Amino acid sequence: MSFLAFAALAAKQPLVSYPYQPQPLRPQDVEIEISHCGICHSDLHLIDNDWATSVYPLVPGHEIIGTVAEVGADCTLAPGQRVGVGWQRSSCGECEFCRAGEENLCPRQEATCVGHMGGFARRIRLDGRFAFPIPATLDSAAAAPLLCAGVTVFAPMRRWKVRAGMKVGVIGIGGLGSLALRFLRALGCHSTAFTSSPDKREAALSLGADEVASSTNAKEIRALANRFDFLLCTVPARLDWITYLLTLKPNGILCLVGAPPGVMQILAGPLLSGQRILCGSDIGSPGMIRETLGFAAEHGITAQVETAPLDEVNAALQRVRDNQVRYRMVLTR
Amino acid sequence: MSFLAFAALAAKQPLVSYPYQPQPLRPQDVEIEISHCGICHSDLHLIDNDWATSVYPLVPGHEIIGTVAEVGADCTLAPGQRVGVGWQRSSCGECEFCRAGEENLCPRQEATCVGHMGGFARRIRLDGRFAFPIPATLDSAAAAPLLCAGVTVFAPMRRWKVRAGMKVGVIGIGGLGSLALRFLRALGCHSTAFTSSPDKREAALSLGADEVASSTNAKEIRALANRFDFLLCTVPARLDWITYLLTLKPNGILCLVGAPPGVMQILAGPLLSGQRILCGSDIGSPGMIRETLGFAAEHGITAQVETAPLDEVNAALQRVRDNQVRYRMVLTR
Repeated sequence: MSFLAFAALAAKQPLVSYPYQPQPLRPQDVEIEISHCGICHSDLHLIDNDWATSVYPLVPGHEIIGTVAEVGADCTLAPGQRVGVGWQRSSCGECEFCRAGEENLCPRQEATCVGHMGGFARRIRLDGRFAFPIPATLDSAAAAPLLCAGVTVFAPMRRWKVRAGMKVGVIGIGGLGSLALRFLRALGCHSTAFTSSPDKREAALSLGADEVASSTNAKEIRALANRFDFLLCTVPARLDWITYLLTLKPNGILCLVGAPPGVMQILAGPLLSGQRILCGSDIGSPGMIRETLGFAAEHGITAQVETAPLDEVNAALQRVRDNQVRYRMVLTR
Repeated sequence: MSFLAFAALAAKQPLVSYPYQPQPLRPQDVEIEISHCGICHSDLHLIDNDWATSVYPLVPGHEIIGTVAEVGADCTLAPGQRVGVGWQRSSCGECEFCRAGEENLCPRQEATCVGHMGGFARRIRLDGRFAFPIPATLDSAAAAPLLCAGVTVFAPMRRWKVRAGMKVGVIGIGGLGSLALRFLRALGCHSTAFTSSPDKREAALSLGADEVASSTNAKEIRALANRFDFLLCTVPARLDWITYLLTLKPNGILCLVGAPPGVMQILAGPLLSGQRILCGSDIGSPGMIRETLGFAAEHGITAQVETAPLDEVNAALQRVRDNQVRYRMVLTR
């Protein structure tokens, strides 16, 4: 028996059909028949070896939804159950972070599609602790992005206690930012969408933003000085961090979930006076993924997606590369 | 009636005897007969107009201990009571920060010796909410630095829940760092003192540090990668922030209490992966000053000080400028 997948055989190459022999099913494992898999920008970075960590053949994909096909003796999932998988496929289970329910910080964590065969495939096997039941009311295609993009934006909102009445900015209105605006609306926050695309201004408002500002016009940003309790940066871009820090209120938080290239330049002044905080967030723990899915189901939050059959993965990837997708591409069986 | 003080009449000038007419005592005010006043590096910056905010004549001094001489109708302090005053002398009492007990973030806060006559004087008048009873067991000279240096290092430990068993680094072993080591010892933390002065290595150990490292040798710092839960930077110096951020464990916090000059260069990587935090702290609220004094009294924490009579303020200032004092100079009546 082999699993049919699509793999890059070398950096920056189109994916090709790639059947592979799965690892034996361990007692803790689940085997999932994949029905949907989102395309995240991280998949492009992996295909292109942008992070110099890629190993080929490389099967991307880490926003997976499917049906439990088989379980190991210790896995508590039930065959036929609908489950989802995100960026992480395993952790050691023993370190201080795993014991604290912060498996996403485990030094021995494994990623779904780094050194393992990911979700651009018909099936996948992984540690069942990292497959999560999908609430019945959520549509599979529209829910797939919750497994990575969704938890990535919701986890820092939980960590930093973002709540009703707060003023929150979201920098970048793409796969992550569009979901962030929906979560913020559900949380009762007043949100400001920062975008560099004039054509996304209207869209941001329809996604739930209360107002829109340019993400690159320093004057427009500066006009929002001392405004935000929380600022979430979803874009891996060089930005004017010094000006953005000044848009935070005292005790305000600027949280990165995208990695800007190169060195970031900041001033200590706004950190000291006003006790502002600069930080990052790294996906979310299994507990946080469950919370994200539950919150999304309760509030009817899903991603705005476009779908394409898995067989047409290369055309779908190209649309993502060309920034044509509003806001997430999801591959279907 | 006039108050005798020592003032700089222009930037970088020696202080001169300066009697002044105090503002009338308002209902909320206290008048204090000053017995002790610490010399903080901020006083030098104010005298020298380093922050371009100084107004002359300028009476420095904001680590004050003295005795209540007179009170306004609404002030609940008692004449004869020993009290202390720190950096802040007033706040609006009405804003969201004042209402939340974070008066140190009030946008209309007033500083003890910026635009007002400070503690290098025989007497001072200020809002009685910002004068704090000194626990009986604390020696006045040794306790004076608690009002600014002490609360400045202890407040972020409280805010970030620094507690027993944590590994904590302190960068800079001067007036602030020496107190930080004592608080950390009392909290049950394992502390590492970072200093650029080889002659302070032994002293840091005697102040309570468990180990000592160079604050400027990149190799020595790099050897401590992934070590610290909390890192407190007490020096206003350009440091290798990228390397320091990597000494933090996941979820670790680098907190600035001294303002490095110019632009700080950092990388997003350690913030994202490991969810590290870069932040600053700005003195402490009245509630936190009371907590600092109470904790210090309970654990016998005071500053190691050198004293000089107020009349010899210029010689005392020179010893601070020359970095001769271990660790705090306190002027006495």
